[in-house]
Amino acid sequence: MYQLKKKCGTARRGEFHTPHGVIQMPAFMNVATAGAIKGAVSALDLRELKCQVQLCNTYHLHLRPGDEIVKQLGGLHRFTRWNGPILTDSGGFQVFSLAKLRNIREEGVTFASHIDGHKIFMGPEESMQIQSHLGSTVAMAFDECIENPAEYNYVKASCDRTARWLYRCKAEMDRLNSLPDTLNPQQMLFGINQGSTYADLRIEHMRRIRELDLDGYAIGGLAVGESAEEMYRIIEAVEPEMPQDKPRYLMGVGTPVNILEAVRRGVDLFDCVMPTRNARHGHAFTWQGIRNMMNAKYTLDESPLDSECDCPVCRSFTRAYVHHLFKSGEMLGMRLCVMHNIYFYNTLLERIRQAMDNDQFEAFYQKYTPILGIRI
Amino acid sequence: MYQLKKKCGTARRGEFHTPHGVIQMPAFMNVATAGAIKGAVSALDLRELKCQVQLCNTYHLHLRPGDEIVKQLGGLHRFTRWNGPILTDSGGFQVFSLAKLRNIREEGVTFASHIDGHKIFMGPEESMQIQSHLGSTVAMAFDECIENPAEYNYVKASCDRTARWLYRCKAEMDRLNSLPDTLNPQQMLFGINQGSTYADLRIEHMRRIRELDLDGYAIGGLAVGESAEEMYRIIEAVEPEMPQDKPRYLMGVGTPVNILEAVRRGVDLFDCVMPTRNARHGHAFTWQGIRNMMNAKYTLDESPLDSECDCPVCRSFTRAYVHHLFKSGEMLGMRLCVMHNIYFYNTLLERIRQAMDNDQFEAFYQKYTPILGIRI
Repeated sequence: MYQLKKKCGTARRGEFHTPHGVIQMPAFMNVATAGAIKGAVSALDLRELKCQVQLCNTYHLHLRPGDEIVKQLGGLHRFTRWNGPILTDSGGFQVFSLAKLRNIREEGVTFASHIDGHKIFMGPEESMQIQSHLGSTVAMAFDECIENPAEYNYVKASCDRTARWLYRCKAEMDRLNSLPDTLNPQQMLFGINQGSTYADLRIEHMRRIRELDLDGYAIGGLAVGESAEEMYRIIEAVEPEMPQDKPRYLMGVGTPVNILEAVRRGVDLFDCVMPTRNARHGHAFTWQGIRNMMNAKYTLDESPLDSECDCPVCRSFTRAYVHHLFKSGEMLGMRLCVMHNIYFYNTLLERIRQAMDNDQFEAFYQKYTPILGIRI
Repeated sequence: MYQLKKKCGTARRGEFHTPHGVIQMPAFMNVATAGAIKGAVSALDLRELKCQVQLCNTYHLHLRPGDEIVKQLGGLHRFTRWNGPILTDSGGFQVFSLAKLRNIREEGVTFASHIDGHKIFMGPEESMQIQSHLGSTVAMAFDECIENPAEYNYVKASCDRTARWLYRCKAEMDRLNSLPDTLNPQQMLFGINQGSTYADLRIEHMRRIRELDLDGYAIGGLAVGESAEEMYRIIEAVEPEMPQDKPRYLMGVGTPVNILEAVRRGVDLFDCVMPTRNARHGHAFTWQGIRNMMNAKYTLDESPLDSECDCPVCRSFTRAYVHHLFKSGEMLGMRLCVMHNIYFYNTLLERIRQAMDNDQFEAFYQKYTPILGIRI
């Protein structure tokens, strides 16, 4: 399913073929938590924002509207009107970050809904069943996500359990995909590497899970408390153990610079709420750095958010207008900034791919790494 | 500037020619209070929602970003990227409804900003100056807007003052339009009829203000506490006194049924926050009545919001999805419902015009008056 087209050092230019279309890689996934991009952006908008693939959250959709409801409504594609690839996470991260009163056992996790407190049990089988109901293109394995820093022995035991859970995920996914009423019988499964910031545990865990020959592999449990340098070190440690013929997904990452650094270290796929969340606070990513649109200096500025951008927002609206919308608390300000940031992220990945195609990735990396994180 | 094409009883089918385009009448104006439609809808969206004319609020724009800022940015058309006709209100209504610590004198009104409490003076000249800075197509005269019910003698005195203020508005507008740096030297001025629910005061006031031969006339001070029947009675009383060759604008009205009733009584132009405000609470106007999208019965309903509607929302999304968005607090729910309701209102007026063109207005009125206000 994954075709490696070219390598630029460790960086990889590839294509991922899915039942819902081809994803040019490296790629960014736009986060539609509850089946909608936050900031009033619809699946129809995503098309003109160069989005290739949408990520939806299993935990949120299980609670609301309920995965059985989504299944009755024909699955996430039909429900959200997005006809490209969709990846669903396993719910694990949210169970460990959002839910209350967790109780972890070998079978799975019992937790209280963050909406109304009702008790829910989720283990590998339940996560696969929910994702099967949602009918996503790619399902993620159910794992334990540990905050960094974490104690070595706890991490080691957790990795063992996450590996055992992965076998159960695979068995359950195979069973679900063979049922006659399954929405997407070609649903793919990605395994998730854990091991906190311990390179030896990361490597050992990766070696175990790659034996399952899954459709892709993710690095989880990063960008959860450790420094960027530690994150890069762990990617470098585990990357040589990841199959070359499978996509590699760095979960929940990150800033434009994080993405450049991770691509350079062999990662293919990313997701992050940053472009949308930061936009809702008025932060616009640009090719010159990050602008805070609340800043009074934009009051009379008739330039577009980014003079190097040709997104639908930059083609039509000025900094002065967007600044005014944020100062006035107009929802439209959020929508325009979210659209711009989604376009920026997708264009960043597109330009990374073009740079690779033209053997210019290293020059691109050198040029933009010092710029994209600056606050201007 | 106004061409009466046809009458169907008292109802009028006409065209209003403005420097920013022709408005087919009767028409609805979409309310973009601070230069943006609430619910994350932009001027570019308005085009595919059949919007003919946008209304912006002088009071809000004077406070934020400031009318001098808007002027420096080229006026409201350039600022909001709406290139069709724009009407600005006078600020009067907001001064009397939103602002605090009002003090009314012959010169004008001193009030405290609802944003930060700072003291502002606004009289007829100031209102005209602000609207001239905004560069709208049509400016509204500065008047006192009284809540109903009101005491007869107070209303009579207020009508006299509003009439005196109108002379000052006209003189100031003429002066401003002749200045070399005026944004829109063809800015038009509409007078506003007042008189609360007293037919004799309404008629007397209308006779006074029509002598000024302004570009249009509005009926103000209705839909501010009185019953719908009283409103219709006042329209019927004052309508025969309004010039046939000028557009007639019923300010701040109203429900679809209010609009049908007022068109039938000779009104040409409307504005109301109802389509956008009600949408933000999940209420969708349809050709079968009003739907509350929060209602659990829509959980599995794959119909569009309105099966008779071909708006961009109804062409793509289901009731089940919009219901889910509202239940999940996703901003996208508001945007989709706002877009639908704007389209519904503009289509209602379009269908009223078509019915007039086909000599079917009375049948249209009889068919839809009993339906459009029902909660279904």
